[in-house]
Amino acid sequence: MDLGSFTTHTDLALDARDMAHAANQGQPIPGIQQESSRENGVRVTKINVLNEEGSKALGKLLGHYITIEVPALREKDSQLQDRVATKLAQEFEQFLREIGIPKNAKALIIGLGNANVTPDALGPLVVENVMVTRHYFELVPEDVSPGYRAVSAVAPGVLGTTGIESSDIVQGIVDMSKPDFIIAIDALASRSLDRVNTTIQIADTGIHPGSGIGNKRKGLTKENLGIPVIAIGVPTVVYASTIVNNAFDLMHKHFSEQTSNTGQILGLLDNIHEDERLQLVKEVLNPVGHDLLVTPKEIDQFIEDIANIIASGLNAALHDAVSVENVAAYTH
Amino acid sequence: MDLGSFTTHTDLALDARDMAHAANQGQPIPGIQQESSRENGVRVTKINVLNEEGSKALGKLLGHYITIEVPALREKDSQLQDRVATKLAQEFEQFLREIGIPKNAKALIIGLGNANVTPDALGPLVVENVMVTRHYFELVPEDVSPGYRAVSAVAPGVLGTTGIESSDIVQGIVDMSKPDFIIAIDALASRSLDRVNTTIQIADTGIHPGSGIGNKRKGLTKENLGIPVIAIGVPTVVYASTIVNNAFDLMHKHFSEQTSNTGQILGLLDNIHEDERLQLVKEVLNPVGHDLLVTPKEIDQFIEDIANIIASGLNAALHDAVSVENVAAYTH
Amino acid sequence: MDLGSFTTHTDLALDARDMAHAANQGQPIPGIQQESSRENGVRVTKINVLNEEGSKALGKLLGHYITIEVPALREKDSQLQDRVATKLAQEFEQFLREIGIPKNAKALIIGLGNANVTPDALGPLVVENVMVTRHYFELVPEDVSPGYRAVSAVAPGVLGTTGIESSDIVQGIVDMSKPDFIIAIDALASRSLDRVNTTIQIADTGIHPGSGIGNKRKGLTKENLGIPVIAIGVPTVVYASTIVNNAFDLMHKHFSEQTSNTGQILGLLDNIHEDERLQLVKEVLNPVGHDLLVTPKEIDQFIEDIANIIASGLNAALHDAVSVENVAAYTH
Amino acid sequence: MDLGSFTTHTDLALDARDMAHAANQGQPIPGIQQESSRENGVRVTKINVLNEEGSKALGKLLGHYITIEVPALREKDSQLQDRVATKLAQEFEQFLREIGIPKNAKALIIGLGNANVTPDALGPLVVENVMVTRHYFELVPEDVSPGYRAVSAVAPGVLGTTGIESSDIVQGIVDMSKPDFIIAIDALASRSLDRVNTTIQIADTGIHPGSGIGNKRKGLTKENLGIPVIAIGVPTVVYASTIVNNAFDLMHKHFSEQTSNTGQILGLLDNIHEDERLQLVKEVLNPVGHDLLVTPKEIDQFIEDIANIIASGLNAALHDAVSVENVAAYTH
Repeated sequence: MDLGSFTTHTDLALDARDMAHAANQGQPIPGIQQESSRENGVRVTKINVLNEEGSKALGKLLGHYITIEVPALREKDSQLQDRVATKLAQEFEQFLREIGIPKNAKALIIGLGNANVTPDALGPLVVENVMVTRHYFELVPEDVSPGYRAVSAVAPGVLGTTGIESSDIVQGIVDMSKPDFIIAIDALASRSLDRVNTTIQIADTGIHPGSGIGNKRKGLTKENLGIPVIAIGVPTVVYASTIVNNAFDLMHKHFSEQTSNTGQILGLLDNIHEDERLQLVKEVLNPVGHDLLVTPKEIDQFIEDIANIIASGLNAALHDAVSVENVAAYTH
Repeated sequence: MDLGSFTTHTDLALDARDMAHAANQGQPIPGIQQESSRENGVRVTKINVLNEEGSKALGKLLGHYITIEVPALREKDSQLQDRVATKLAQEFEQFLREIGIPKNAKALIIGLGNANVTPDALGPLVVENVMVTRHYFELVPEDVSPGYRAVSAVAPGVLGTTGIESSDIVQGIVDMSKPDFIIAIDALASRSLDRVNTTIQIADTGIHPGSGIGNKRKGLTKENLGIPVIAIGVPTVVYASTIVNNAFDLMHKHFSEQTSNTGQILGLLDNIHEDERLQLVKEVLNPVGHDLLVTPKEIDQFIEDIANIIASGLNAALHDAVSVENVAAYTH
Repeated sequence: MDLGSFTTHTDLALDARDMAHAANQGQPIPGIQQESSRENGVRVTKINVLNEEGSKALGKLLGHYITIEVPALREKDSQLQDRVATKLAQEFEQFLREIGIPKNAKALIIGLGNANVTPDALGPLVVENVMVTRHYFELVPEDVSPGYRAVSAVAPGVLGTTGIESSDIVQGIVDMSKPDFIIAIDALASRSLDRVNTTIQIADTGIHPGSGIGNKRKGLTKENLGIPVIAIGVPTVVYASTIVNNAFDLMHKHFSEQTSNTGQILGLLDNIHEDERLQLVKEVLNPVGHDLLVTPKEIDQFIEDIANIIASGLNAALHDAVSVENVAAYTH
Repeated sequence: MDLGSFTTHTDLALDARDMAHAANQGQPIPGIQQESSRENGVRVTKINVLNEEGSKALGKLLGHYITIEVPALREKDSQLQDRVATKLAQEFEQFLREIGIPKNAKALIIGLGNANVTPDALGPLVVENVMVTRHYFELVPEDVSPGYRAVSAVAPGVLGTTGIESSDIVQGIVDMSKPDFIIAIDALASRSLDRVNTTIQIADTGIHPGSGIGNKRKGLTKENLGIPVIAIGVPTVVYASTIVNNAFDLMHKHFSEQTSNTGQILGLLDNIHEDERLQLVKEVLNPVGHDLLVTPKEIDQFIEDIANIIASGLNAALHDAVSVENVAAYTH
């Protein structure tokens, strides 16, 4: 029984799009809208899953997805970090507008994950660093300057340390504090090592737990909570088996470029479909203790940096009075 | 507007009893039952406030109070700490029996306070270290061995960092997770420096916030939450003005023992009632930055030690299968 | 046997000056040069002890002292913190010039204190946050841009956790790494609660341990180490007895302003000299556990803020290429 | 330029022995003595490299090696941890005897690595948790009970945060504090994921840095420091390329057992020697950000557990008065 986090191992929309594209031999995928831009080492891709057809093609829920990719984010460059926070703020503000969240809508930020497990601590760290204002609106509304909205923030812990489903805790808090929408921050298991701590995904689809323990685990979704749930996810861990499976592809590609004999590049592995191959890799690695979830060794610094970026970005996006220029001042 | 913790500055029942005793010139106080024992440097005092008369005399609510005093607790003696955990476990188990909490009643442990402010982090640290079991009862009830009860544990944060009253968060969690009773851990402001990190109080009266911001702050009480609330409190901070006021008493006593001239020991201070004098001290110290809440410099170690003691004690008290001997094994 | 830090309990030059001034009935003190300026809530006082006469009058060693006082530093104002870092950078750069440390002199920053005791962690935290560059000069000198000097930084730990005198560890490091001067950061015991975490003192007199354990404890001084030692000290703790003793003064002053009867303001306390009174307070408080070293409850945040200020200030002061404007970028 | 730790990537003697064995087709290796025992899930292997022939065969220096393997160590079982600490204590005590370190020889424990990078924090954490006694021998020798030896402990930091080679700092400390031998604790890069946080190696060969930056990096060795240096190493990280390379072996083995066609199991990979294959994997993964050093996601807990085991084991091994039974009492 897995009681930890990281059970949701959803693919990023971006990766799903790439796979669908490949399957579709590069043709546009019906039901999918997308645009992409790149500036100063930061690539932003927006994917809208418009209908069932698109949803089926991508294996993703209907909704809006934004991915911010910054390969250099692991290089501890504080100016780049400021640029990413600024970009995130702009994109998030526009995202709220597009999905119809008004400027005065009250936000509840939920930091999912376990504060004591570094690669799972992203959510709690963001909660620690965002500006909360709801209590001023409740207790001294007359003192609140214009340009702010009511923001609250809670890190509900994980099932293994609280004994209560995060979704139940969030539901209880929503019932009592009546926010208008939720922003849920979560660390994700990645599809590849190069995504870890370099990619931020925003989506208005909520958080859906994996198929873990039967039907008992509830998601953080509009259906369950009655209000929109925006998910912000960052891949922070990856299975060893995923690393290996990716490597097979890279090796195959490498050899293909060097040989004309395409028949026997990786031997028996060439005859297996990718999903099946991953399953096989898991079966081979797992019993001998070789299939752990792993994270880069510099994870302490990475998590702190990305949590600051997200907190700064949210502060600027959520309050008109917090401009993108002073965005860093509100976190530590 | 004070948004932090430590607003509840309630006197310990023990201190209230001493003051009432003094006021009553050493006579028994009607409506109050008490007993005291001392063993191996650990003193346990039980005070029951039986009726309105007793409540008025002590200025404390009707209910059961246990105080565990261990002056040597600040000396980093791990064997003493084990003895205190054992004593706490015994007393807490008996306390539950006496106030009618059955063996299979489901407990929700609430760790009040701010995990990032060391002297206020007691509650969150206890939550981090207690065994939680509720999820096993919910998800795999058939796998739960006899001798355990369902325990959950949450640190709801503080108003200043979540924007939501702790009591509202707790109420929401109670509604969703349906515990039978609550154990709320809180760091307290102390009436004297020697109590800081040496005294643990258990009471079945719940947690009552101070008279801070009007009526808006709700307590964690049976009235509000519908289930019994047991409070475990430890003084961890003290006002500078309290230290000074205590010192006046000690100095007065010191001089009194040395002089026959009782008329003019501390001059003008002698003519002022204690409450008035404290008020005066506050007025004199505060404007010049001299009246802060302070804590001993070794607070990091103290808080960790007491949190471990309380977590170990609760683990043994709440589960029959966790014996007092192996009580330390479940925390780190 | 006290093996911890805080044994040096030296008065700040500023406080010594005030006391000498009072003793001298406001007349200038021979052998002492001083100047003071105030700007934007930051007061800078420079005191030079020129000769033996001045040294005797102040009870301070010959040398240069700068004190930066910022009463509002405890209010978590990040813009004020930037201003203080900038001011510190300017003053420190000028200080180096005045005492004859050239621009290319190699600095070794020593962070005294115990990283696991928050109010004693100032030195280790500064070391964690300063830019170190010495290894580039050693390993890839051709790659070092102009405008930098060689800076190294070590936190040697405390006697109680290493078993070795800090001064011996520093001596060994000096012998091996050959710096031209030392900057030693230390947390101090304060003479009054309002100084705690609001005052930074710079002095070129080195660090002198208290009269603790005979002659065995050596200081960090030019005499011992052969190179100049600049001390940066911040009061972070205060004895309860000091708080009480200060309060007596404040109460006396308060009553004096309200009464014409100057004879019997604080009774027997009025007849005692201040030093004797402090001794008496210690004797009365100590046996009952009332004379601890205490620190404000918000110490975690305070220490982090001041460590960042000092690290930022040193980075800008030590390297021409690090301008005062981008001073904050190099710390986290 | 890599300035961090983990540059020493030495194979464990155990792994070297296995490879040499395989190369020698299972025949005994001349110049190598070995014995192995297993009890309660803990396997202990001792390998002595007796002469140049053995050294060459294994690619390891002459000396004594002990490896303690505990596959279940990652399962957070506190009773197993106590057993491992006890075993470590016994083996280490005997090891000291065998290599001729007398009972009253003064030990200096060096915790290599970076305290702020969790998988590299093993050394600093051990230093934090061991009993230090040297200062009692220096300052109050008459108060020291029999059964203790003088132990000191320092975490010298890493080049990237101090600007000084760890070996220089250690040399300086040795010169000043005159220990009789050194115990150096270090986190290692692993040869396979299943070794990470499950294996402890003790060796009397000192610590030899990798071939990083020319000849400038000095090791912690008897040659350099003039006293014996015992290294305790634990693999805590592994290169993604190593995981992949191991997986190729496991996959090959898996397929071999299922097929009779041994000619074309992994295609082109079958024709490459292992070293060459690893090189190739690195070349393929690295440019696309796929070859990071990674660590299991539960690294915070693992490192804390192993640091406690090593500290407890050393405490019991170094002091006769600390028996194996109370070994856990001295750490937290």
